[in-house]
Amino acid sequence: MERRKFLKTAGAGLAAGAVTMPTLSRAQQAALPEVKWRLASSFPRSLDTIFGAAEVMSKRVAAATGGKFQIQVFAGGEIVPALGVVDAVQNGTVQAAHTAPYYFWGKDPAFALDCAIPFSLNVRQTNAWQLFGGGLELFREFYKTYNIHQVPCGNTGAQMGGWFRKEIKSLNDLKGIKMRIGGMAGKIMEKLGVVPQLIAGGDIYPALEKGTIDAAEWVGPYDDEKLGFNKIAKYYYYPGWWEGGPQLDGFFNINEWNKLPPEYQNIVEAACWEANTWMVAKYDAVNPAALKRLVGGGTQLRRFSNEMMVAAYKASLEVYKELEQKSPAFKKIYASMVKFRDDELLWFQVSEKAFDDFMHGIHRIK
Amino acid sequence: MERRKFLKTAGAGLAAGAVTMPTLSRAQQAALPEVKWRLASSFPRSLDTIFGAAEVMSKRVAAATGGKFQIQVFAGGEIVPALGVVDAVQNGTVQAAHTAPYYFWGKDPAFALDCAIPFSLNVRQTNAWQLFGGGLELFREFYKTYNIHQVPCGNTGAQMGGWFRKEIKSLNDLKGIKMRIGGMAGKIMEKLGVVPQLIAGGDIYPALEKGTIDAAEWVGPYDDEKLGFNKIAKYYYYPGWWEGGPQLDGFFNINEWNKLPPEYQNIVEAACWEANTWMVAKYDAVNPAALKRLVGGGTQLRRFSNEMMVAAYKASLEVYKELEQKSPAFKKIYASMVKFRDDELLWFQVSEKAFDDFMHGIHRIK
Repeated sequence: MERRKFLKTAGAGLAAGAVTMPTLSRAQQAALPEVKWRLASSFPRSLDTIFGAAEVMSKRVAAATGGKFQIQVFAGGEIVPALGVVDAVQNGTVQAAHTAPYYFWGKDPAFALDCAIPFSLNVRQTNAWQLFGGGLELFREFYKTYNIHQVPCGNTGAQMGGWFRKEIKSLNDLKGIKMRIGGMAGKIMEKLGVVPQLIAGGDIYPALEKGTIDAAEWVGPYDDEKLGFNKIAKYYYYPGWWEGGPQLDGFFNINEWNKLPPEYQNIVEAACWEANTWMVAKYDAVNPAALKRLVGGGTQLRRFSNEMMVAAYKASLEVYKELEQKSPAFKKIYASMVKFRDDELLWFQVSEKAFDDFMHGIHRIK
Repeated sequence: MERRKFLKTAGAGLAAGAVTMPTLSRAQQAALPEVKWRLASSFPRSLDTIFGAAEVMSKRVAAATGGKFQIQVFAGGEIVPALGVVDAVQNGTVQAAHTAPYYFWGKDPAFALDCAIPFSLNVRQTNAWQLFGGGLELFREFYKTYNIHQVPCGNTGAQMGGWFRKEIKSLNDLKGIKMRIGGMAGKIMEKLGVVPQLIAGGDIYPALEKGTIDAAEWVGPYDDEKLGFNKIAKYYYYPGWWEGGPQLDGFFNINEWNKLPPEYQNIVEAACWEANTWMVAKYDAVNPAALKRLVGGGTQLRRFSNEMMVAAYKASLEVYKELEQKSPAFKKIYASMVKFRDDELLWFQVSEKAFDDFMHGIHRIK
């Protein structure tokens, strides 16, 4: 047979699905499509851990598909504004996004529950709620309205409370303080007398240096050190009670998601969960050294007083009551989170806490 | 062309790799092999969370490969004895195993470091050490001697300290206590006067009931409740200081691993990490309700006294010094773990602990 003719005929046979010989049939089944997606991150490349989680996911997906499924990751602003990524996924401008859902609480406060709200869950409690407490089901139902399929894809762990130029000794010291803090936390801080300010990451340093603001929260030691806040604010407060375990998500346009072969959907789900662990682990690995450098350089660590934390907690309950009135989705998902959290806290304060607390003291004995 | 003849010719063309037409070429590249593996678990199906982690991994791998890569999971004893799984992977009887490496500390105590040793790491610290503290590199180098490639695949979280028929009020009360506890923890307990006993899971209840033993440790509320220990021992101690975050592993015969296409290797790695999170999350979700039922049924929760914990910690240092003499691998990897742990504890006792501690108290205010 002439080579050209053989190829043409064999090709036609494959295309029509008429070939029944096992070898060809397997090859045909295996012919997964080449897919190229664009993913819009809400983060700059300089936040290498948060931004990096999307890259880790994307690289694993490519390697797991022999390079056939490529998800190109763009930093915030490169193809879509950092805070425009939900719209972009919803209307199909991009197939995917990587973001912190609480940025979008203005659309609906329920978004924030899928990330962190003040006094919600730590990392493990978040994972348990998403996987076994009904979280995933609730959010996937909620996001359908936005044409989005969600897969958890990263977590920072408990963040720090931020940098203050002056020490906050009592609740009264908060009155009139101008602080760079956004979202629900800003709303709660406002109830305590703080004047919350929305300032982009790159603009915080000059504002704090000039005294336009008195305090600023960002992430934790590793990221904060890079922005140099320690040079212009002496007091580093903890805990970031508004971010006990904020989750990042992979957001996928639901039509694009449904077009994927099940193999690719499964690979993305597994890769997102892997990236979730990767990101927590990386922060846990790089934060200690950064914290040591900061403290070694003169930074004064301070715990928010119990008085202030209790006042903030009570203020948060007021805010949540208001939000329950505004959003049925928030009301429903908040109730699920609170019920689950109460059980988690009961369990975590037994063996897990006793082990950690003991280790914090004893490990210096070698 | 006669159909039969076409098929034969087309098959020969594919087999020889001579087909250059794009459609066929892609199909050919995509023709990943059908692979069937057997995985020997060290666990019974009744431990649905630990055993389940291997099943979660296996199901994800199958779904991510369109069913072409099947890993059949066998319970301990079904095809390989529960504690024979390392030998079985090493000599190729099975391609894979799912186990708690510390079972094999008799081969070399370094195995235990890849799971938990008394007073080592919690879940997050374990993940961070494996991924960013040199853990994975150290273990993969170590396991080469055993013909094994390792991927972390599960974690129980901090376990409970176990069931005691009598209250342990002082270190003196431990003297002569017969306790079901194995491995290094048994060796350390022995230094405190305990008589450690090795008893399989199913035999613990009758031994404790008859008074052949006075105490027994197993896992945590969810698994312990199923074995009914609460009916025959009143005091439930915590923390399980010998298991702050014991990691399970997927063990893969290195020759079989190297034969896999890179796509399958990548899928298994991601699926194992996903199963790791799944297992921690499931325990965190099911333990609280079990603990409530146990306490509601009369179980008395007790924290091991500080006196006892400090004595155990000091005894553990003696044991580790002995093991460092015996095993160069233990010495090298233990040093890496201790150095990493010290940094982790410094970091975790700041924001993470402050957030958790505050939540443990405040959440009852609604």
